[in-house]
Amino acid sequence: MSVKFAVLGHGVVGSGVVELFYKNKEKIEKKAGCEIELKYILDLRDFPDTPYADKFTKDFNDILNDDEVTAVTECMGGLEPAFTFVKACLERGKSVSTSNKELVAEKGDILLAIAKEKNCNFFFEASVGGAIPIIRPLHKCLAANDISSVSGILNGTTNFILTKMYNDNMAFGDALKLAQELGYAEKDPTADIEGFDACRKICIISSLVYGKHVYPKSVYTKGISDIDLADVQTADSMGYSIKLIASVRRMENGNILPCVMPMLVSHENIISSVSDVFNAVLVDGDAVDKVMFYGRGAGKFPTASAVVGDLIDSVKHKITVFSQSWEPAEDDSFVEKIDSFKSRWYIRVSSGAKVSDSAQLETESGLSYITDNELTFAEAMSEAEKSGALAVIPVLE
Amino acid sequence: MSVKFAVLGHGVVGSGVVELFYKNKEKIEKKAGCEIELKYILDLRDFPDTPYADKFTKDFNDILNDDEVTAVTECMGGLEPAFTFVKACLERGKSVSTSNKELVAEKGDILLAIAKEKNCNFFFEASVGGAIPIIRPLHKCLAANDISSVSGILNGTTNFILTKMYNDNMAFGDALKLAQELGYAEKDPTADIEGFDACRKICIISSLVYGKHVYPKSVYTKGISDIDLADVQTADSMGYSIKLIASVRRMENGNILPCVMPMLVSHENIISSVSDVFNAVLVDGDAVDKVMFYGRGAGKFPTASAVVGDLIDSVKHKITVFSQSWEPAEDDSFVEKIDSFKSRWYIRVSSGAKVSDSAQLETESGLSYITDNELTFAEAMSEAEKSGALAVIPVLE
Repeated sequence: MSVKFAVLGHGVVGSGVVELFYKNKEKIEKKAGCEIELKYILDLRDFPDTPYADKFTKDFNDILNDDEVTAVTECMGGLEPAFTFVKACLERGKSVSTSNKELVAEKGDILLAIAKEKNCNFFFEASVGGAIPIIRPLHKCLAANDISSVSGILNGTTNFILTKMYNDNMAFGDALKLAQELGYAEKDPTADIEGFDACRKICIISSLVYGKHVYPKSVYTKGISDIDLADVQTADSMGYSIKLIASVRRMENGNILPCVMPMLVSHENIISSVSDVFNAVLVDGDAVDKVMFYGRGAGKFPTASAVVGDLIDSVKHKITVFSQSWEPAEDDSFVEKIDSFKSRWYIRVSSGAKVSDSAQLETESGLSYITDNELTFAEAMSEAEKSGALAVIPVLE
Repeated sequence: MSVKFAVLGHGVVGSGVVELFYKNKEKIEKKAGCEIELKYILDLRDFPDTPYADKFTKDFNDILNDDEVTAVTECMGGLEPAFTFVKACLERGKSVSTSNKELVAEKGDILLAIAKEKNCNFFFEASVGGAIPIIRPLHKCLAANDISSVSGILNGTTNFILTKMYNDNMAFGDALKLAQELGYAEKDPTADIEGFDACRKICIISSLVYGKHVYPKSVYTKGISDIDLADVQTADSMGYSIKLIASVRRMENGNILPCVMPMLVSHENIISSVSDVFNAVLVDGDAVDKVMFYGRGAGKFPTASAVVGDLIDSVKHKITVFSQSWEPAEDDSFVEKIDSFKSRWYIRVSSGAKVSDSAQLETESGLSYITDNELTFAEAMSEAEKSGALAVIPVLE
């Protein structure tokens, strides 16, 4: 008996899923323990020249109404029609694996609840960190841990730009242009460089780790577009790299504080060695201490690898519904506001200013220093305003 | 209904399992989806002062013959009596999670076959890389990949020693002494420093990835006891760290070549940033490209974290037997001999020697160079012998 599945969307990731599936079909079936057949590919466009042209359909109902199809991989991206399609599949008891971070970040709780009710699986390993196994290890391998924080580099485009600024002294605009030329950044790079992409991913991680749905709109998000090359260089001299860090930590009051911000990362921290388009996620647990996952956070085959891994798992465990799940959140009162975020801060002021903090460096772009003490976000902003600071960036501890 | 489990061995890891279980009991039960009760702790010693003194037994049969006990965690270490006990548990259909790398490396195929036959699970996430999720991600998340090689730092003691040599210019003997003082190395450090520990772990990874049992005796293993501080320093000047690397690669003829050797790792490779007692495993797959897992490879709670994570999984999936498995190997003809191992090599010869290779550095300890071309192990040894080399170390590509 073979299991039949459908691929929704034949863009970069969807075509990767199809190609990877056929390339490693034998291995994949061995792992899944049964034969697997690709029955449909949904796309509004025509692909007459692919070897699987006969699989294409433009009508989602062909897939939905075919009871032979028990598993679906969603690789369309965007909220709609992905949400409508995935919801309909789960309601019919078809397991879904998706690479769509927007879908999971905005609608994960609803889709997980339907999957549970209908005794099928909703998997989304590919939605965070592309190829990097992170969702399943977080949920399963680290299940015995009380997790105090997760922080990481969750966007490859911005990490590439920051790496170019750091290694090659390129200004932000030039590095962005290069990223676009190389296909690492979109024509409209807003979602990446303003941190929205990283925000969706830290929402998914936060929801999974703390058990309640965290919406992107509740998360303070700041991108890298105003990072000055001078700060990248000065931070380096002081022993730090600047990285776009998406993080979530549990506060003493039990609330959680997710946020996305450029941060100074000490060269002693392995996260600072993560360069180019690579992503990494560092998990802090009471038993494991620090664990890091590293790899390609995007790209056709890396992302397809995670989607097909999920497909194998849903085929293998047809009867087991995984408890990888979280509750809907009635409000976001459990999400702490950014004002109470605490850390040491890197601040750059005009040359000639006087500061009392001990770590300081005078260059032609001004006087940079790292505060001796931890300050809240609100305190740091107020100090920066008073001194007319040219840059103010938190330090990852 | 609660699930009842037993812990075999109350040493460092076993006591960690018990403490971690009680500390995070509520979270653990939530993840497992049911109540879990620790019913027995097996140890020949007395522990009258622990809060769970009433759980102790000295008689393994108490556990074996108690049908209420459906899951067992084995933390005794060593081949016997661990093998006899684990085998007996699996034969009675009790799922077993173990941290015992020797047991898995020597007897994994037998135990996996019994678990499969008896419809229970044999899990061993803790046996490789301690806290680091590696077994399950390799098997599940990367299931869609054709894996060409795995390489990593799988022994924390030797990594600590090499880090001390590198950072603090300590000689090998002094660094070993410090490791012993800090409790990172045993009184008899042979298993760590001669690479036997790393060898068992790469055997487990090789068996899992390539599907056939690889025995430690088939694996070329060289430790770090003759690494000279001069080579650590010279390699650094040439842009490399020296690390004890356990690796396995697939050869063109389909055979595999596992081995354990000190190797030069380029500073560009993130593996070279893994210091102190931390471990890391880098996986190369056709779809994911490179993925790395990083964390504490040993220690009471990190290891216990992995054991309890496995326990949760076996409780949760009572009815699902995982196909994380491999076949027994009738002989080791599929394991390539070290002679065909190929790489560039770092070689140090007496000062004044003449070599034609381009990367070379003359210091007071001699002339060091890296061969321009890849040489097989056999060729490198022959070149080294001819030139009376003082050191010959492969380069990790």
